Amino acid sequence: MDKIRIGIVGYGNLGRGAEASVKLQPDMELIGVFSRRKGIKTVSGVPAYTMDEMLNFKGKIDVMILCGGSATDLIEQTPAVAAHFTCIDSFDTHPRITEHFNNVDKAAKAAGTAALISCGWDPGMFSLQRVFAEAILPQGKSYTFWGRGVSQGHSDAIRRIDGVVDARQYTVPKDKYLNAIRNGEMPEVTGQEAHLRDCYVVAAEGADKARIENEIKTMKNYFVGYETVVHFISQEELDRDHKGIPHGGFVLRSGESTPGTKHVVEYRLQLDSNPEFTGSVLTAYARGLNRLAKHKATGAFTVFDIPPAWISVHSDEELRAHSL
Amino acid sequence: MDKIRIGIVGYGNLGRGAEASVKLQPDMELIGVFSRRKGIKTVSGVPAYTMDEMLNFKGKIDVMILCGGSATDLIEQTPAVAAHFTCIDSFDTHPRITEHFNNVDKAAKAAGTAALISCGWDPGMFSLQRVFAEAILPQGKSYTFWGRGVSQGHSDAIRRIDGVVDARQYTVPKDKYLNAIRNGEMPEVTGQEAHLRDCYVVAAEGADKARIENEIKTMKNYFVGYETVVHFISQEELDRDHKGIPHGGFVLRSGESTPGTKHVVEYRLQLDSNPEFTGSVLTAYARGLNRLAKHKATGAFTVFDIPPAWISVHSDEELRAHSL
Repeated sequence: MDKIRIGIVGYGNLGRGAEASVKLQPDMELIGVFSRRKGIKTVSGVPAYTMDEMLNFKGKIDVMILCGGSATDLIEQTPAVAAHFTCIDSFDTHPRITEHFNNVDKAAKAAGTAALISCGWDPGMFSLQRVFAEAILPQGKSYTFWGRGVSQGHSDAIRRIDGVVDARQYTVPKDKYLNAIRNGEMPEVTGQEAHLRDCYVVAAEGADKARIENEIKTMKNYFVGYETVVHFISQEELDRDHKGIPHGGFVLRSGESTPGTKHVVEYRLQLDSNPEFTGSVLTAYARGLNRLAKHKATGAFTVFDIPPAWISVHSDEELRAHSL
Repeated sequence: MDKIRIGIVGYGNLGRGAEASVKLQPDMELIGVFSRRKGIKTVSGVPAYTMDEMLNFKGKIDVMILCGGSATDLIEQTPAVAAHFTCIDSFDTHPRITEHFNNVDKAAKAAGTAALISCGWDPGMFSLQRVFAEAILPQGKSYTFWGRGVSQGHSDAIRRIDGVVDARQYTVPKDKYLNAIRNGEMPEVTGQEAHLRDCYVVAAEGADKARIENEIKTMKNYFVGYETVVHFISQEELDRDHKGIPHGGFVLRSGESTPGTKHVVEYRLQLDSNPEFTGSVLTAYARGLNRLAKHKATGAFTVFDIPPAWISVHSDEELRAHSL
């Protein structure tokens, strides 16, 4: 069997997550990592190249897994790479997905490549669960909860406050809403009401903790409107207990098939590492995308377009015998 | 927009569940119900026909939803109907799925139709979750738990015991295993160990309850090897509290992306009515199958072959804008 030849573009946490995941897939071969930085050493020992060297790999890499950040990198990088390679990204800036899709679609169609965008866990696996549950239960209500997990953006925002040395913010879904939905209720609840913001803060010696706590809780666009809890801890405690980047969440749909006959569908992810799981989803869908490309499909696609069998390493016969 | 014209074959609990579900889908029209019995009255008022009249509807029905039982009906009915119509079933006799697939595939290919088999919640939605989670986390362990839900087969087996008037058996997954898996453990546990069999029994007046309880707990292939609990209740209590046909269950996968970095994926269904939810899955996939048939695909298929977008009533643009 010819292995699927993979390239990874971008080598931060997500790139390393994708690298680890490709190494677990028996039908894939990691050809190289492409980075803006020169001379990086990869975890697996696979060769690293600069972005400028990428075009030397035309015809030698089947799928490029793009591991840059959405806002700054992917919005330009995915169309640029799609002009030469079949590629996949985890673009997650929701309001710009349509714009990004159209840009990538145009570049990929012009080049005769296929590109899959917005493939991670949300957007990605959570999106799939929303589509499945809504198609099956058209009469009902869907909910998405995020966490318990680290929000990098909120952690950074706290760190910018005067007197803060370090900080970690967890987004935590409130059990009372989860349990109400599981019990067949359909609460009207906003994202602000549904989540708690749990903050672990290292203050500088002598800093005014009451002021810091107040600045956090009154920070617009980040904490105002949310129930926010602030814990002051030492740097040692933060390093010991809060260095991971766990995340996850829930997609639920509560619906009725006939009046009074209720069904609840729940999908839950508990992830020790957000970037490693996202990398794992990208890798599985790189397989599906490679199969799509072999069918001569060109343009932009999403997880909604890929038959589930195509992301599996197993044959259709094996899937029917063992997974159906 | 031309509506998808649906026929329902078989009019027991599942047929009525499919009927209710079709009525909730704005892009579908229920043309008729086909039954072995003559002169039945349908819940929705849609016309009922006998099986013999089915061929009069060639070209007038886009998808037939087959709602018979697996063991007795579908094994013969699906290939027979596939010889004339695009059709979908919920065949769930696991050991015979390959045989059934091959029979249906042959009939459908010869006739130039498409047929989707084994489409419900297990097999069906649970199967999809197993494939997704295993593709994303190749290093790990998958678990399926059923319940809390009524097992018709086990309820019937209890009713055949001398001195039993009525009975209802619930299969209940044990929380200790669910919680262990959610905590990242990977217990080795058999299906017998993982489930409790909870029995509600109405005994005849003067019947020996100790003997009945003993006969239940020692019944081979049904209860031996399981933790079994027997409650004796009155017919009134059974009619009041145990007349529903709820079911559901869990698919979990616990896996690692790098050593020590764990992820847990959980999919849970809580269904007030097993046949109504199964009917709802069949209906959503009837939409996907209709689209597959429009692509001139012929032969047998499963849920693994259908791009998720195809089961949705929404356009690709809408899905990207609102569900991704």
